Amino acid sequence: MWSRALRSNLKLSKSEACIFFKNKIRGASTCVEGEPEGPVVKTDIPGPKSKQLLQELGSLQQVGTIQLFANYDKSIGNYLVDADDNILLDTYTQISSLPLGYNHPELLKVFNDQHNMKCLINRPALGVFPGEDWPKRLNGILSEISPKLPNITTMMCGSCSNENAFKNIFIAYQRKKRGDVDFSEEEKSSCVLNQPPGAPKLSIMSFKNAFHGRTLGSLSTTHSKYIHKIDIPSFDWPIATFPQYKYPLEDNQRENEEQDKKCLSEVEELFEKYEKKGIPVAGIIVEPIQSEGGDNEASPQFFQQLQKIAKKNNAYLLIDEVQTGGGCTGKFWCHEHFNLETPPDIVTFSKKMQLGGYFHTAEMTPRQPARVFNTWMGDPGKLIILQTVLRVIKEQKLLDNVLHTGTLLKIGLLELEKEFCYLLNSTRGRGTFLAVNATDSKLRDEILTKLKAKGIQSGGCGSNSVRLRPALIFQEHHANIFLDKFRQVLKEIN
Amino acid sequence: MWSRALRSNLKLSKSEACIFFKNKIRGASTCVEGEPEGPVVKTDIPGPKSKQLLQELGSLQQVGTIQLFANYDKSIGNYLVDADDNILLDTYTQISSLPLGYNHPELLKVFNDQHNMKCLINRPALGVFPGEDWPKRLNGILSEISPKLPNITTMMCGSCSNENAFKNIFIAYQRKKRGDVDFSEEEKSSCVLNQPPGAPKLSIMSFKNAFHGRTLGSLSTTHSKYIHKIDIPSFDWPIATFPQYKYPLEDNQRENEEQDKKCLSEVEELFEKYEKKGIPVAGIIVEPIQSEGGDNEASPQFFQQLQKIAKKNNAYLLIDEVQTGGGCTGKFWCHEHFNLETPPDIVTFSKKMQLGGYFHTAEMTPRQPARVFNTWMGDPGKLIILQTVLRVIKEQKLLDNVLHTGTLLKIGLLELEKEFCYLLNSTRGRGTFLAVNATDSKLRDEILTKLKAKGIQSGGCGSNSVRLRPALIFQEHHANIFLDKFRQVLKEIN
Repeated sequence: MWSRALRSNLKLSKSEACIFFKNKIRGASTCVEGEPEGPVVKTDIPGPKSKQLLQELGSLQQVGTIQLFANYDKSIGNYLVDADDNILLDTYTQISSLPLGYNHPELLKVFNDQHNMKCLINRPALGVFPGEDWPKRLNGILSEISPKLPNITTMMCGSCSNENAFKNIFIAYQRKKRGDVDFSEEEKSSCVLNQPPGAPKLSIMSFKNAFHGRTLGSLSTTHSKYIHKIDIPSFDWPIATFPQYKYPLEDNQRENEEQDKKCLSEVEELFEKYEKKGIPVAGIIVEPIQSEGGDNEASPQFFQQLQKIAKKNNAYLLIDEVQTGGGCTGKFWCHEHFNLETPPDIVTFSKKMQLGGYFHTAEMTPRQPARVFNTWMGDPGKLIILQTVLRVIKEQKLLDNVLHTGTLLKIGLLELEKEFCYLLNSTRGRGTFLAVNATDSKLRDEILTKLKAKGIQSGGCGSNSVRLRPALIFQEHHANIFLDKFRQVLKEIN
Repeated sequence: MWSRALRSNLKLSKSEACIFFKNKIRGASTCVEGEPEGPVVKTDIPGPKSKQLLQELGSLQQVGTIQLFANYDKSIGNYLVDADDNILLDTYTQISSLPLGYNHPELLKVFNDQHNMKCLINRPALGVFPGEDWPKRLNGILSEISPKLPNITTMMCGSCSNENAFKNIFIAYQRKKRGDVDFSEEEKSSCVLNQPPGAPKLSIMSFKNAFHGRTLGSLSTTHSKYIHKIDIPSFDWPIATFPQYKYPLEDNQRENEEQDKKCLSEVEELFEKYEKKGIPVAGIIVEPIQSEGGDNEASPQFFQQLQKIAKKNNAYLLIDEVQTGGGCTGKFWCHEHFNLETPPDIVTFSKKMQLGGYFHTAEMTPRQPARVFNTWMGDPGKLIILQTVLRVIKEQKLLDNVLHTGTLLKIGLLELEKEFCYLLNSTRGRGTFLAVNATDSKLRDEILTKLKAKGIQSGGCGSNSVRLRPALIFQEHHANIFLDKFRQVLKEIN
């Protein structure tokens, strides 16, 4: 069964395949006690209570994206319970932001500790009056999970992390250009009025179909859907093509390698083009797997070359791990699968990390204070939650669990793809961070709707992909339920 | 004593003056039990422990803005205790973000409630799967404190609130222009590539010395200090002059009215200039009192006229109450002092509110979903804290307390200004949101340093202002300690 081809398709190393088997033999003990045996659907979703609540909320704000109202007292582990008591197996986990599922007992205990509670309630301006345990806490995070980067800046969410990381990039880029001299009076006075040379024309290169956030700077690097961007002014920054692979990978190797080459040469061209245009590229931002844009992968070789091109052009490489980070790809950071020559200059995070922020090289740290700064600079209350998440991941060997469950899920999806080849194709991903394409977007939406009617909360991405974003505690028995329901749906559609 | 001139300088209405006297007679009962009797300074600040911690943290990040490390277990009420056991009377409250001081007993109880704890731990994607009590909670906030605006959008911080509010403005502005028709194919395809017409050239007008945040969009409306902006690319958006008043107001009425007129006519000119430039102004953002930029006030008449000009130009008015909101000016929102003809189109908040977000008109609400959206859309854990803050404000009549203490503080500052007229001038502000100028910036910094050595944590703003930002529980006896120490400092400098 573990042929080289299958291993290659599943992207498992030999040692990872061993972990899979060890888990297989050991059998899965439940990560969270008290989960139901499976999903239970009692009403349409949204049900009558959710509909009533939707109407109430609709008088206060735009509610078109709301799928249901949840009961977070009753939700448990991998199961989301809604206001109408429907019990859904959650493979989407609040847009991939719940590392340990619902009501994890260890998380419920975090603030029983009075010191932790006081850290939560007395929220400080961390850049001015941090608590005395803050250096130790940050040091702990760095030593446990930093992707070999020595510095950390904490923030509140993914958009803010990318926005501020851009600033670190611009600051470092200009320092390199200016040399070790003070700002000129002209720079000082012009920047306050939004004008060059103080506010220089510089850009961040991004990729088509990328998603890096919704605030005006990060939105200028987001290109996944028009509805995210229409009517909003944007910086004129360069946008390169991201590889679009054909699957299965092993049958399309030559073509996919051509994709890599074409896209990389476009990156080089854009460096030149924007230099000539007077808006030089200070950095590149890229997701290790384009998530919102359709779970588009690129090869380790692509990323290795991309880093080389950035270095050659004196630009910095920012890897956006907001959605891919936190263990869901089987490694803590997805880019750790790529064997980069050196760590990226910046790695941003949020979502499963609870806290936003980024790891970075010392070169990225501004020499002067107050340049990357805001009132809160993160939130100790979220960092304390993250510390517990990390402890549970370690104690319960959840990265092994991700690899094990992910392998099962991927095998299952490949089998479904074979059985329903006129409905599904292009199974891909790492760990439990997986996706499969429907033949068109209407069919994809139908699949998501029918899955929900069978008690599976799932999500889409891109125009026609079904994406899996379960919690790290998603186990073999959950995978089997999901695959079983998915098969039923495909049979019904068939 | 309560001459019309004094009342006018203190900006008290007759009924407010009554509240002052009622409090005066009633005498102040302590808001938070267990506070020390006054500040105690044992070491230099930062002391040896803070210095040691600074060194540790300095290896992980830029730490040039850090003043001290705090002990948040020991801090209580208006008193911040640092790592070296210095006890400081806090008139700065984490850059104006702590409404009830440290370790308020009601806040420490919030998460004893298991339901609240589950809301905190199971943090949802509020735009997709809100908890079933979310509409009721939001409704409660709206009905209690909305400045007569019917809609609310929740966010995480001040910068994000302003950034997203800009998007609401751009969306509404373009809808008005486009009319009730669908987006064109050209708009859809161009916006994804950052280009007009889909990503139109539009602007937000702001004011010199304004501060609205640090992400790239909000930073394009921030003009307080060069170090916030240098090396960071910016949108070319119009910047008008904000009135710079002479004090005392009653002696400089004519000149200050001239200021208003001059600034307003510049606003009108900029509408025209940027229309011609092909970057029309969709909205104006303004602080009710420019805070970071130097506690610069403008008259109610200025704001009334500004709103009229915005309306005349089909643009929207965004009042940024991130620092002024939450009760510190004696009304819940500072702009409520201005008697505007209609509520502003958007009012943004954060800081003391714990949660970020904005109130807005229905016109500001996008017609299509997913346009103003992100993963979390705020944080129920923070809203629950806010609910308790609001309850305490009401029960303990803290707005009355602000007015009472603020009046005392202002009288005290005016007296000091008279006594040390060659050191201080231009006492100003509302409620406890007060400032006074030192004659130059070196003197201002000396004052802040000497105040700290006497156990007063204070803050500066602009180039030479001392700003007061105490918590809402700052009372008469705290004001007296502050004024007493301030007097000692001025005498020493004298």
